[in-house]
Amino acid sequence: MDVFASTDGQESDGHEQVVFCQDKQSGLKAIIAIYSTALGPALGGTRFYPYASEAEALHDVLELSRGMAYKNALAGLDLGGGKAVIWGDPDRIKTEPLLRAYGRFVESLNGRYYTACDVGTYVADMDVIARETRFVTGRSVEHGGAGDSSVLTAWGVFQGMRAAAEHVWDSPTLAGRRVGVAGLGKVGRHLVAHLIDDGASVVATDVNERALAWVRQTYPQVDLVSDATALVTSDIDVYAPCALGGALDDTTVPALRARVVVGAANNQLAHPGIEKLLADRGVLYAPDYVVNAGGVIQVADEIEGFNFDRAKLRATKIYDTTRDILRLADAEGVPPAVAADRLAERRMAEVGRLRTIHLR
Amino acid sequence: MDVFASTDGQESDGHEQVVFCQDKQSGLKAIIAIYSTALGPALGGTRFYPYASEAEALHDVLELSRGMAYKNALAGLDLGGGKAVIWGDPDRIKTEPLLRAYGRFVESLNGRYYTACDVGTYVADMDVIARETRFVTGRSVEHGGAGDSSVLTAWGVFQGMRAAAEHVWDSPTLAGRRVGVAGLGKVGRHLVAHLIDDGASVVATDVNERALAWVRQTYPQVDLVSDATALVTSDIDVYAPCALGGALDDTTVPALRARVVVGAANNQLAHPGIEKLLADRGVLYAPDYVVNAGGVIQVADEIEGFNFDRAKLRATKIYDTTRDILRLADAEGVPPAVAADRLAERRMAEVGRLRTIHLR
Repeated sequence: MDVFASTDGQESDGHEQVVFCQDKQSGLKAIIAIYSTALGPALGGTRFYPYASEAEALHDVLELSRGMAYKNALAGLDLGGGKAVIWGDPDRIKTEPLLRAYGRFVESLNGRYYTACDVGTYVADMDVIARETRFVTGRSVEHGGAGDSSVLTAWGVFQGMRAAAEHVWDSPTLAGRRVGVAGLGKVGRHLVAHLIDDGASVVATDVNERALAWVRQTYPQVDLVSDATALVTSDIDVYAPCALGGALDDTTVPALRARVVVGAANNQLAHPGIEKLLADRGVLYAPDYVVNAGGVIQVADEIEGFNFDRAKLRATKIYDTTRDILRLADAEGVPPAVAADRLAERRMAEVGRLRTIHLR
Repeated sequence: MDVFASTDGQESDGHEQVVFCQDKQSGLKAIIAIYSTALGPALGGTRFYPYASEAEALHDVLELSRGMAYKNALAGLDLGGGKAVIWGDPDRIKTEPLLRAYGRFVESLNGRYYTACDVGTYVADMDVIARETRFVTGRSVEHGGAGDSSVLTAWGVFQGMRAAAEHVWDSPTLAGRRVGVAGLGKVGRHLVAHLIDDGASVVATDVNERALAWVRQTYPQVDLVSDATALVTSDIDVYAPCALGGALDDTTVPALRARVVVGAANNQLAHPGIEKLLADRGVLYAPDYVVNAGGVIQVADEIEGFNFDRAKLRATKIYDTTRDILRLADAEGVPPAVAADRLAERRMAEVGRLRTIHLR
């Protein structure tokens, strides 16, 4: 796979910079991809994964970094989009020297890229990486980290859901609505709490028995069903996928009884055509990367010195952004995902352009 | 072509960092390759060339940056090895925005890579690039540049030739020897001057009529022959290839009457086996990248603020380095090119290791 060719012929500007980093002694093979720095330094996590090939690793980091540019733009952050992958099995090769070698390469970019946790990397790893570079978020609370980012992820999803509710039912509340939450991990649980507080009735499911036990104990009023299929086909107003990706596919969408889909899971659309299928069935889908941006908003706040209240204020704006996107989608006659992309590109172009006004 | 795979299975450490840089608006597609920074920031020129494919561009920059690491190490510089390529036809796409976009990417590496002129880029281009980055050499004299680097390239080749003469004839001089100079470009002309001053007799050739006219006028005592074949087969003690690469091939080496080959041209060996063919025929070959390092020594001096006398002192040491390499080759029973690689690797490892002694 070629780096430049990956964006040839596309309308987009393509990736600014793709950095292959190698330290043979520690076994480090990493690729840092910076899609855009139009809005500021590129922020995105480091995925540590045993890809089958270099081409597969490159493909993933190019896609993910592009996604982060759009996500960070719509999150209203002064941050561009980037992502990194470390190629290898973290259980086998993750060591202090490897993580620190990686940290030195992050530092070598002098702040054009900030890293964070992703699949295969954890808070403790960020603390190690931070011994070599200043450009790390997702650190432990003791080191100035933002802590568990599921808190504001759930808060942001709830705000997105309020905006969707207003768009469909003219009132920004879930009170009296029935919401189906698929996945009761950390984000799902926080979301259930917000929904109950708001006066919604909740039906939920999870494969994990301990998660179910937690719900039975904490929120006995929540109905539990056996699996996602049962949830999707039940009489719900809102569907909130909060587990693995691909929740919306050719099977679930035709079976779906909800008018609105707003959830925390990444990559909810199993393939590009699903977006249209949802629209054709009159289902309002708030793009996942818009409503689940509370997490990146939370860790990004570390860059300024973490302040929970400030980060929460920013995550609350996901309500406004979702509302704007849904209105733009109606106005321009496109699915919300297309409207979201347009809004992101507009912000990157219009705010990025302001640097042409010279200051220093 | 894969970046990491390019060095898999090799004993070498492989490239530290390979940076793809793109600015679609100006048309910039560049690859900066940093082979090693063990000895300091990586220095190497920027080649601007219309490669047939990204894979070809990548292959070239990986090879060239590796070569620069070895060259700079043996030149005694506190500099690692790197190189860059800009993919495209300079006559068609070279513009101020493109060069400055490239300069910003050089700057983004924050001094881990210094650029310089190479095929397709000139002093005037470096002056443009320098408007975006501090990490440029090869600028115009008016901007602190080292000026025409053929001066110390020729001086270094002459020093290498002195060391080879001492190794073969026990005296570090070309006095009384007959030297064949192929190529009377800028370096070749300076070399002829040094040889005449030293008391050598010179036979030379060039395809360019103006170059020949210059010699006839300036050094009427120089014999001129019609082409390189005539030069190689003439009765010479030393052969100095100072034109295009590949001067030593399966045709020229068997025909060669010289005992010693020392010249300024890059990549004199047409293919790897030639080295052994030279050794088998008792021809002493001083590796090209060792003896022609005066040029990089000259431009590297810009980093400290150019001082010709200091740079000349450093280029004079090519005598010592060539002597050490030839002795090591004898001692270890290997061709000089192998001895040179070992010496370079030794310096990178031994001097690079000193950073383990913490200072600040």
